[in-house]
Amino acid sequence: MKSIHHPDRKDFMLPAVLHALSDPIRLNMVAQMHRSGEQACKNFDVPIANSTRSQHIRTLRESGIIYTRFEGTKRLLSLRTEDLNERFPGLIDSILNVYENE
Amino acid sequence: MKSIHHPDRKDFMLPAVLHALSDPIRLNMVAQMHRSGEQACKNFDVPIANSTRSQHIRTLRESGIIYTRFEGTKRLLSLRTEDLNERFPGLIDSILNVYENE
Repeated sequence: MKSIHHPDRKDFMLPAVLHALSDPIRLNMVAQMHRSGEQACKNFDVPIANSTRSQHIRTLRESGIIYTRFEGTKRLLSLRTEDLNERFPGLIDSILNVYENE
Repeated sequence: MKSIHHPDRKDFMLPAVLHALSDPIRLNMVAQMHRSGEQACKNFDVPIANSTRSQHIRTLRESGIIYTRFEGTKRLLSLRTEDLNERFPGLIDSILNVYENE
């Protein structure tokens, strides 16, 4: 099984999390996970090439925002909601609330 | 008197605001204005060259986060708190609250 690095909650950095959320495509993906829970990578409704999507997923994962797991050939992504809320109380909800009202 | 462009509140973009706040120096400057109100540009306690500081100030101004005015030879900077709160309710407080608790 593939294994990839996920940062510990204590190592999340606010600037890196804000940077990860400062791109419209990444914000869109995070909002989809927030609304619908864990998503297969291929199911994201974003108009970009696979390689670009992979880069965005990496940025989200390395900042601590998402968790990636593999199931067979599928890559499944979910928000690390509990870790984010523990480390940065109220932050992700505040940003997504603004995003959803745009 | 010098005149520089400030975007209208309605033209603020969430990704641009998050990008502007995704840099530790810029976050630090925003937190200083949040704590102490309008500041003379030269008074910011950040360990960077003047040219770099000017670039950071421009990024903050163009995203809508700060207002710049000139008084003689001084450049004075303040947060556009009312505009930000109207456009993105709760966002800047949430981010600065997390920042101050880091």
